[in-house]
Amino acid sequence: MQFASESVENLIEQFSKLPTIGRKSAQRLAAHVLKMPTSEVSRLANALLEAKERVRECSICRNVTDTEICVICSSTKRESTIICVVQDPEDIVALERTGEYRGLYHVLGGVISPLDGVGPDDLHIRPLIERIGTPNTSVTEIILALSPTVEGDTTALYLTQLLTPFSVKITRLARGIPVGLTLTYADEATLSRAIAGRDTMSKP
Amino acid sequence: MQFASESVENLIEQFSKLPTIGRKSAQRLAAHVLKMPTSEVSRLANALLEAKERVRECSICRNVTDTEICVICSSTKRESTIICVVQDPEDIVALERTGEYRGLYHVLGGVISPLDGVGPDDLHIRPLIERIGTPNTSVTEIILALSPTVEGDTTALYLTQLLTPFSVKITRLARGIPVGLTLTYADEATLSRAIAGRDTMSKP
Repeated sequence: MQFASESVENLIEQFSKLPTIGRKSAQRLAAHVLKMPTSEVSRLANALLEAKERVRECSICRNVTDTEICVICSSTKRESTIICVVQDPEDIVALERTGEYRGLYHVLGGVISPLDGVGPDDLHIRPLIERIGTPNTSVTEIILALSPTVEGDTTALYLTQLLTPFSVKITRLARGIPVGLTLTYADEATLSRAIAGRDTMSKP
Repeated sequence: MQFASESVENLIEQFSKLPTIGRKSAQRLAAHVLKMPTSEVSRLANALLEAKERVRECSICRNVTDTEICVICSSTKRESTIICVVQDPEDIVALERTGEYRGLYHVLGGVISPLDGVGPDDLHIRPLIERIGTPNTSVTEIILALSPTVEGDTTALYLTQLLTPFSVKITRLARGIPVGLTLTYADEATLSRAIAGRDTMSKP
């Protein structure tokens, strides 16, 4: 016996499917939803549908965006000579919070992880090569801003080998980041220091 | 600068409004939603709207239900001589899990809490009196299954005074429940013992 309402049980089940939300948390969230004004519940439901419907990948950097090209790629105030390669759009949010970086980004959409069945072909590596491989490219440096985990390091090494033939400087974030911590949750100060002290991995 | 997508930012904002979900958790949930299949996102959005639309209060016991009268009140297998008074529908789920109790329930919808501006008139006390006050009532016992907090105890005392004139036995759950823990999250064994050892507060 659970709740005497199928709708409530269904809501709890749907909530439980989200990461870090177990049965007890889902139950608490569902109880809260029942007490929320209908307008607030509609707003949450619409936000879910709209995010899924409207959000797409920037055709240049693969960041999340509501438009064809994201605000960073279309900005004239950003240095177009540097591309910072990150795993996920959340990492851009974390790096932007430092206020330290004025270049462009490129979202891989993951890292190489054979155990999870993720290989180089599953990542947005081809569009990155297109950005630096064209004859009139303005890019002179690639910063590999990947988490200092086994998968992040593997991906960084793979990209270094792949990008070395192009005449760009390849750097990676300084090892100021505490090893083991995923990049998204690093604090601003540590990230700032990591950008400032980035290591050269290959010179043209 | 946050996410380069208003839809994503809006979703994060809506998630943050839920209890126990802060900005970081909301960000993680939003990132997960973007990776979910559209069908799954629709299912969550619909579950939210449906729960708000279809769920109402049982006209007898005020439990959550999709029908006029809930499955417990309409069951012929329950003892109609005992009513267990609880704060919220979640408490019924917790009590039903023990398998110890076969009577009926009554949901108050809260407890008396002057600090939160909740008085007796804000609770479903009148429908409870109607259930035991009719001449042909079959109710002989009321179990007050409220959390052993200041508010829960205050409400239990208030109800005891109010219900004493009616010829029903009034009991409360035994103090096997660890004081301070809210009823919803007590474990089955403790709740079972609390039902078995319930104290008499007033005899007809």
